[in-house]
Amino acid sequence: MKRIITIGREFGSGGREVGRRLAEKLNVAYYDREIVDELMKRTQLAESYVLQVEESRPLPLLPITTARTFGIPINYPLENRLSIYKQESEIIREMAEKSDCIIVGRCADYILQDLKPFRLFIYADMCSKIARCREKGADAAAVTDKELQQKIMSIDKKRARYYQFYTEQNWGDKANYDLCVNTTNTEIKKIAAAIEKFIV
Amino acid sequence: MKRIITIGREFGSGGREVGRRLAEKLNVAYYDREIVDELMKRTQLAESYVLQVEESRPLPLLPITTARTFGIPINYPLENRLSIYKQESEIIREMAEKSDCIIVGRCADYILQDLKPFRLFIYADMCSKIARCREKGADAAAVTDKELQQKIMSIDKKRARYYQFYTEQNWGDKANYDLCVNTTNTEIKKIAAAIEKFIV
Repeated sequence: MKRIITIGREFGSGGREVGRRLAEKLNVAYYDREIVDELMKRTQLAESYVLQVEESRPLPLLPITTARTFGIPINYPLENRLSIYKQESEIIREMAEKSDCIIVGRCADYILQDLKPFRLFIYADMCSKIARCREKGADAAAVTDKELQQKIMSIDKKRARYYQFYTEQNWGDKANYDLCVNTTNTEIKKIAAAIEKFIV
Repeated sequence: MKRIITIGREFGSGGREVGRRLAEKLNVAYYDREIVDELMKRTQLAESYVLQVEESRPLPLLPITTARTFGIPINYPLENRLSIYKQESEIIREMAEKSDCIIVGRCADYILQDLKPFRLFIYADMCSKIARCREKGADAAAVTDKELQQKIMSIDKKRARYYQFYTEQNWGDKANYDLCVNTTNTEIKKIAAAIEKFIV
């Protein structure tokens, strides 16, 4: 029975809700923001800084191996970012080794690949993601659909770049996941119940 | 309850077996080769010709709309192929309108889009597809893994081209499906049971 589950998700697709519901059903730990909290405790770094680092890749165009192999001169922002990624990876590994769990985002599927996690990717079409953002977000009422779409695309672009930088794989490419679920026009509750059957 | 299910599948991924098992579980009709049989009955065309047409696109680089819009001079092989696609589409529509069913391949997800089918895509990694071909195929024993890999890639390339020609969408792009399932290292029986929960 595979009980380490990683979730990649498009912004607004309901991936977090899938994760929470699945964690409840399977009675396993759920880690998302908890990873940032733990990192803040260990490093005294400000939350806003950690979140900003999570949303960007360290250096444009150079994959992590190249930056190291060619001995690029020390670059403190880069070093800080790599250090945050490294510490987050350690926290993720500790969490996964401690107990069965669900981990959202943060390249966990790649970091934990030797533990053979069940790798989920949650996505939806743009209309559905906009509608979900409006349902969930208090500030969404103040922006137009076009602005919301731009925000969604921008966040997903950052996620894709971050993932690609550290894993050298394409974010959202189905080959890297065991199951890809389109949440368009479907209740998340129903989806979580169905996903459970893939895992147990 | 959605009871029209379309299945796109990589060669060797077990997509047909998923379809058959799912049809049994849901007690609905299953159409795959049956579409070719029906077409042969209606047209008197040879099976080998129909199968060959299904495996290729009519004209390189020109999408179906362009070929028609610009009034390209009559091209009998092209006309025959378009006619076969049209008749297959009609058969698929008749089948879907007759009763709940599962339809494998043949752009059924696109042809039946107004009926809002549940669109599945089944895939697997290359090692797993080679292993499955060896399990299933009597002639597979005579070929090397490399030859088998080339055969798998060539069939999937044809499927992708055929699909893209008629639908102007990318075959296997998760955006066009409701659920994409990686069958690598997993029993098809278990997968079929889990997929059922997404549908009922």
